[in-house]
Amino acid sequence: MLSNIRIVLVQTYHPGNIGASARAMKTMGLTDLVLVNPRRFPDPEASRLAAGAEDLVDDARVVGSLQEAVADCVQVVGASARLRSLPLPHFDEPADMARELVEQGADDPVALVFGRERFGLTNDEIRCCSHQVSIPANPDYGILNLAQAVQVLAHELFTAWRRRPDSGYRPALPATERQPTREQLDHFHDHLSRVMQHSGFITQPHARTEAHLQALFARARPSRRELSLLRGLLGSLERHLPDE
Amino acid sequence: MLSNIRIVLVQTYHPGNIGASARAMKTMGLTDLVLVNPRRFPDPEASRLAAGAEDLVDDARVVGSLQEAVADCVQVVGASARLRSLPLPHFDEPADMARELVEQGADDPVALVFGRERFGLTNDEIRCCSHQVSIPANPDYGILNLAQAVQVLAHELFTAWRRRPDSGYRPALPATERQPTREQLDHFHDHLSRVMQHSGFITQPHARTEAHLQALFARARPSRRELSLLRGLLGSLERHLPDE
Repeated sequence: MLSNIRIVLVQTYHPGNIGASARAMKTMGLTDLVLVNPRRFPDPEASRLAAGAEDLVDDARVVGSLQEAVADCVQVVGASARLRSLPLPHFDEPADMARELVEQGADDPVALVFGRERFGLTNDEIRCCSHQVSIPANPDYGILNLAQAVQVLAHELFTAWRRRPDSGYRPALPATERQPTREQLDHFHDHLSRVMQHSGFITQPHARTEAHLQALFARARPSRRELSLLRGLLGSLERHLPDE
Repeated sequence: MLSNIRIVLVQTYHPGNIGASARAMKTMGLTDLVLVNPRRFPDPEASRLAAGAEDLVDDARVVGSLQEAVADCVQVVGASARLRSLPLPHFDEPADMARELVEQGADDPVALVFGRERFGLTNDEIRCCSHQVSIPANPDYGILNLAQAVQVLAHELFTAWRRRPDSGYRPALPATERQPTREQLDHFHDHLSRVMQHSGFITQPHARTEAHLQALFARARPSRRELSLLRGLLGSLERHLPDE
């Protein structure tokens, strides 16, 4: 699942960011982590922040250059907070980047590259990339923490993958409740009308009020159980109404 | 910008998660943070992890119950890692939740609620919500760190807001380079053809090869500057070719 998509972190300063990035990756089905010249690695902080994704940290490959990290990749997207003057093709929308990377990653290795916390990627490193992507953000404060940026783009990759017809992804949906029939709904609305008239809320059948209530319950889509509950309530209320 | 959308964190255990969540919020244009019974707050860890979003932490409202936190809201979405058996309306897709919350938030306060790191929200707290949302994730390891979950959903909210015609959001695009005219492109392709024939790469005009190259450069969309660069290169190469 998404196994051809490599996440590359270049010269990460805080080992905690490596761990948190690994966790972010694993929640989104990514497993291939490569570190280019991490400042301190291995490190207890990386393992601690990884939580249940320590396997990704333990299996992470460490290399000396970005070139080495992506040599076998057919597409390399550099994530940068700021656009560079170098007119590398740029994805405005992370979702577009994700769709394309997942598509290319179906056949060959591809990579998404993140730079240093403070300084991002150098121009030489940008030259190892075929595309750039940035995460649209608040113009007044738009720099995400490194691991947060990894989480956001990993989420976009997982979303793009899920939506492919061949992904086989099945959301964990709750069991659907049984729905009432039209006849059962009609009985309920008749019952409700009777109680409204009997209680003096309306003095005769009032088409507009009844139409509003029918629309409300149509939107609510009560299950059989819920309708039954409402009928029971109406029954209890009726017992206190004056005899007709 | 997105000012009616409140982020509520219930009984957050790690103050660092409060700070990191505030940072995540601010990068995505959110400013209204409310904390329900945080375990330790204020705390230096919250300020430290907030980075440039300390103002959100300082302005965060602290209340004693979720009910109090969302009393004035017209829509309250509970973010939970697991679906509850309670059939509260559920958003499968964070993007759908975001579109709706931004829409509702145009007129009235709305809230997105996150539970405890380990235990999420209690059933009573779910009852304060009108909807649930979960972030689709790896079925084998799908629990995001709290601040990461805030970042992902905040990103979806910002995306939904950006895409509205009335948002006024303008992406920071690099200045577009001037494009060559058809005539300039034709001159370039003629020049390239001459060099290909003159060098012996093709022995006569070869329509298929030329069509491929025209398609390549059509996709590449060289700017005027780039075309000029290529013409210069062709000129330099020509000087070394045997006289015709």
